[in-house]
Amino acid sequence: MTFRTHTCGELRLTDSGKEVTLSGWVQRTRDKGNLLWIDLRDRYGITQLFLQEGESKAELLSIARSLGREFVIKIVGVVSERESKNPNIPTGEIEIKLTSIELLNASKTPPFTIEDKSDGGDELRMKYRYLDLRRNPLRQNLALRHRMSIATRSYLDGQGFFEIETPYLIKSTPEGARDFVVPSRMNPGEFYALPQSPQTFKQILMVAGYDRYFQIVRCFRDEDLRADRQPEFTQIDCEMAFVTQEDVLNTFEGLARHLFREVKNLDVAAFERMDYATAMKLYGSDKPDLRFGMAFEELNDLAKNHDFSIFDEAELVVGINAEGCSEYSRKQLDALTDFVKKPQVGAKGLVYIKYNTDGSIKSSIDKYFTTDDLKKWVDRFNAKPGDLMLILSGREEATRKQLNVLRIEMGNQLGLRDPLVFKPLWVTDFPLLEWNEESQRFYAMHHPFTSPKPEDIHLLDSDPGKVRANAYDMVINGVEVGGGSIRIHDRGLQKRMFSLLGFTDEEAMNQFGFLLNAFEYGAPPHGGLALGFDRLTALFAGHDSIRDFIAFPKNNSGRDIMIDSPSPIADEQLNELHLRIVQ
Amino acid sequence: MTFRTHTCGELRLTDSGKEVTLSGWVQRTRDKGNLLWIDLRDRYGITQLFLQEGESKAELLSIARSLGREFVIKIVGVVSERESKNPNIPTGEIEIKLTSIELLNASKTPPFTIEDKSDGGDELRMKYRYLDLRRNPLRQNLALRHRMSIATRSYLDGQGFFEIETPYLIKSTPEGARDFVVPSRMNPGEFYALPQSPQTFKQILMVAGYDRYFQIVRCFRDEDLRADRQPEFTQIDCEMAFVTQEDVLNTFEGLARHLFREVKNLDVAAFERMDYATAMKLYGSDKPDLRFGMAFEELNDLAKNHDFSIFDEAELVVGINAEGCSEYSRKQLDALTDFVKKPQVGAKGLVYIKYNTDGSIKSSIDKYFTTDDLKKWVDRFNAKPGDLMLILSGREEATRKQLNVLRIEMGNQLGLRDPLVFKPLWVTDFPLLEWNEESQRFYAMHHPFTSPKPEDIHLLDSDPGKVRANAYDMVINGVEVGGGSIRIHDRGLQKRMFSLLGFTDEEAMNQFGFLLNAFEYGAPPHGGLALGFDRLTALFAGHDSIRDFIAFPKNNSGRDIMIDSPSPIADEQLNELHLRIVQ
Repeated sequence: MTFRTHTCGELRLTDSGKEVTLSGWVQRTRDKGNLLWIDLRDRYGITQLFLQEGESKAELLSIARSLGREFVIKIVGVVSERESKNPNIPTGEIEIKLTSIELLNASKTPPFTIEDKSDGGDELRMKYRYLDLRRNPLRQNLALRHRMSIATRSYLDGQGFFEIETPYLIKSTPEGARDFVVPSRMNPGEFYALPQSPQTFKQILMVAGYDRYFQIVRCFRDEDLRADRQPEFTQIDCEMAFVTQEDVLNTFEGLARHLFREVKNLDVAAFERMDYATAMKLYGSDKPDLRFGMAFEELNDLAKNHDFSIFDEAELVVGINAEGCSEYSRKQLDALTDFVKKPQVGAKGLVYIKYNTDGSIKSSIDKYFTTDDLKKWVDRFNAKPGDLMLILSGREEATRKQLNVLRIEMGNQLGLRDPLVFKPLWVTDFPLLEWNEESQRFYAMHHPFTSPKPEDIHLLDSDPGKVRANAYDMVINGVEVGGGSIRIHDRGLQKRMFSLLGFTDEEAMNQFGFLLNAFEYGAPPHGGLALGFDRLTALFAGHDSIRDFIAFPKNNSGRDIMIDSPSPIADEQLNELHLRIVQ
Repeated sequence: MTFRTHTCGELRLTDSGKEVTLSGWVQRTRDKGNLLWIDLRDRYGITQLFLQEGESKAELLSIARSLGREFVIKIVGVVSERESKNPNIPTGEIEIKLTSIELLNASKTPPFTIEDKSDGGDELRMKYRYLDLRRNPLRQNLALRHRMSIATRSYLDGQGFFEIETPYLIKSTPEGARDFVVPSRMNPGEFYALPQSPQTFKQILMVAGYDRYFQIVRCFRDEDLRADRQPEFTQIDCEMAFVTQEDVLNTFEGLARHLFREVKNLDVAAFERMDYATAMKLYGSDKPDLRFGMAFEELNDLAKNHDFSIFDEAELVVGINAEGCSEYSRKQLDALTDFVKKPQVGAKGLVYIKYNTDGSIKSSIDKYFTTDDLKKWVDRFNAKPGDLMLILSGREEATRKQLNVLRIEMGNQLGLRDPLVFKPLWVTDFPLLEWNEESQRFYAMHHPFTSPKPEDIHLLDSDPGKVRANAYDMVINGVEVGGGSIRIHDRGLQKRMFSLLGFTDEEAMNQFGFLLNAFEYGAPPHGGLALGFDRLTALFAGHDSIRDFIAFPKNNSGRDIMIDSPSPIADEQLNELHLRIVQ
């Protein structure tokens, strides 16, 4: 007994005359009265089946006519050349003249169409995920994900990395995001936590001498889910001993370029490098999209002292040059103004300067600035006739962020953000700490294990906010694909960091004592990084959303609609765990 | 700045004269007064460093003399031929004449020796796992595990399998072992469960048309831990659509043979096949160790009606032949008798027949059986002079189990169980159900998704205990490495199974409704298996215990001693989860 001799994707004209057995799903049937075709689908493709009144047995025709969409069948037939060929599919030159059909399983009519563009809504497709996953786009996404995981492992194995599995039942540490916890039945009143990342374990592995570690690993964060966040997500997690930042960047730039080559057949140029301060100055973002220019120009010297109070009172006047946009209409400019004034962006207004194609200059601040004044602005932007300059002003940090959003919007409007063009860079020299106004304390920008730059250590006490870290992010097309750092490997410095972050010695020992202890037994210098695997895969496919790159994602309430989870558990289970639910 | 130009495992005589930089741990120092050697260790090997009073700078000698075990250093020096070579290590022909030493990190004296045979006890080694992991045996274990995971993926990828990640936050289902549960903060009073295996998800993937799925995946069981069980463990989990049992067996026999070839450089013969009934009859075990013979011989016809009440009252008299053991002393035979009478074995006594080298026969039942009688026994066993037959009797099932334990013990005593000889087999045709006396109901022997053999389906109502399943185990050297089955893909049959297992329709729909629903939309025939990855790796290394093949195992109370987990969590966390601990 065999279900198939071939898949539905492999038969060609050269197979003509062969008797074959195929199994798969009925994609569609076309019944022209005396001629009947069935498209049979499996993971590998679609093969056309053929029946003819008179030639084929009546019983066969009757079975064929009873088949609905998504019925599962096994057929036997002979490969034949098609009359009208379909050049769009690899099997398009042949069809199978049927000699038998066996119904393996029937199907109700699916609640939405199994086509590249389905008519199903999001919730319905999540509930019937097994049907949604049959569609080509999702199948291609998961195939891509598989190929990326294979290529990642092949590269890292070749570089001497060991994949080492770290535990999923670990210990809750309040620093960072919220943990998912797991009550321990054998230790009543105690809990494991699911890892937000294997950070401390990979550092322990460096202390243990494993030299080069990686893992494609699930991580968990119990956060209020924003769009496109998942409570469980996957990281390519890596760590190396006896390395400088340069070693880490080169190794993982190598990984990314390997993936582009293996999976996308793309040769990506060497990554740009940009320090955090420059990225913020030029793009108002620590993850600049370098597929297009429009770097920021600062204009305080030109803008101030022209009796324009908005500029005079601003901490920063800064703009971008949208090349070739001088013909933007009043309506388009108003729309841009509305865009930047949206609460999510938060600017007070938008100033524009049009450098018209005839050489004239027209701006929304003509009242305060002469044409000669504005010529200097145009020169600052290196603008050409036909360009449009867009200028924001206000508090420095906020204004840069607003201009970043406007720059991205202009990139979108001008079609400068082709999802299949890839411009990766490393952003380096992040600040070690960030101040939180609300809790009036410093938080680690990356995490508490990131090392300060040696030349900045003297600032740790006097001006901690100024200390730069040996930390870096891999950014592709404006997306932070991952990040990492050279870690602290000195117990004293690590304790000082915990203290800066407001840990008492007791808290530090209670939560991270094992790491601090490990640092007393010959910890080597080490560093690493983690890449978001869901995100990276989506990016490779040119998609923004990660949801369709995860086989079974959860919705924005953290719920798996297909299996209807989370769900209540039995009282007996609660009792065994020594827990009671309180409302 | 660079930490090393080479690793501690790669320099050879051909590198003589090169100036090199190495980093690593001080394994030991030998100070002969005017000559001083340091063994420097990293993951890749050990390299000998050399200093000489007079030749080397005084400062260097002083640093070198201050180094303790496990200090981390970076050195520069010149590769030179050794005077007294060490043929036992690959770098044994050279040493490094030091020109500089930089101390990267000091180390306290480790609480146990970092040697192949450590002097540390289990608990101490678990607490300082990062030191234990530095020892060669553990490093080799984890390196083996890495190579096995790479080879597994390479084989399955080559066979067209996609690795697809299934969720870790799923739904609690009381059937089977106890689940670990995860309270949902966003859905108060509700819980996720951690998967005991991705069983239902991989079946859903088959319904979704993925055709060939695998995953090297963590699984979780909240069981009372027996020796060598872990609350989290790793499976190679696989599923295939449109396959017969034969297809599955061939594919994964292929995987196992690929692993033996790639990882152990061993060509393993085609797997034997044995059905469950035969395995129980011949070896009293569903996981027989085929590295040696000693198959059971049944003796009821010879044993009964000789006025020996023990045999006359027994349901089964059955024995094994221990070849070449006729010289076993009284003391040895008494020890064997004591062995089978231990409560864990539970036999009432042991009968022996010695077929002496001189051709005479001596037994512990001479009173009841003549030499002629016993000659028939000897013939039944095909025994040769010099052999020893060991016979048990009693209730059939219990006696077979006892004789299995005795057979294994004899295999051990006779050195027939070489851990580096591998004898794999498939055990097939398991019973579908097993009766539980305590709860007076049937349980699925494998799991509720296993399909009955079509030819036995008619027994489902009349004699469910007799129904055989399309289920199979991969057994190597008496260890069940994994198992699987052809699944049910018909909604009606699946519902009938749930009903046989005591589920109400409502319970079945509540827990497995998504699968039953999926079966209505064109589920293909499918089947698969899962291999225990921890166990398989340990087996490949010739070890019984999995603990040292897991980087960070838990102890028998489910506790990670190194990180001290599980542990109490903050009241705030409990409040957010709407939980209270009750004693």
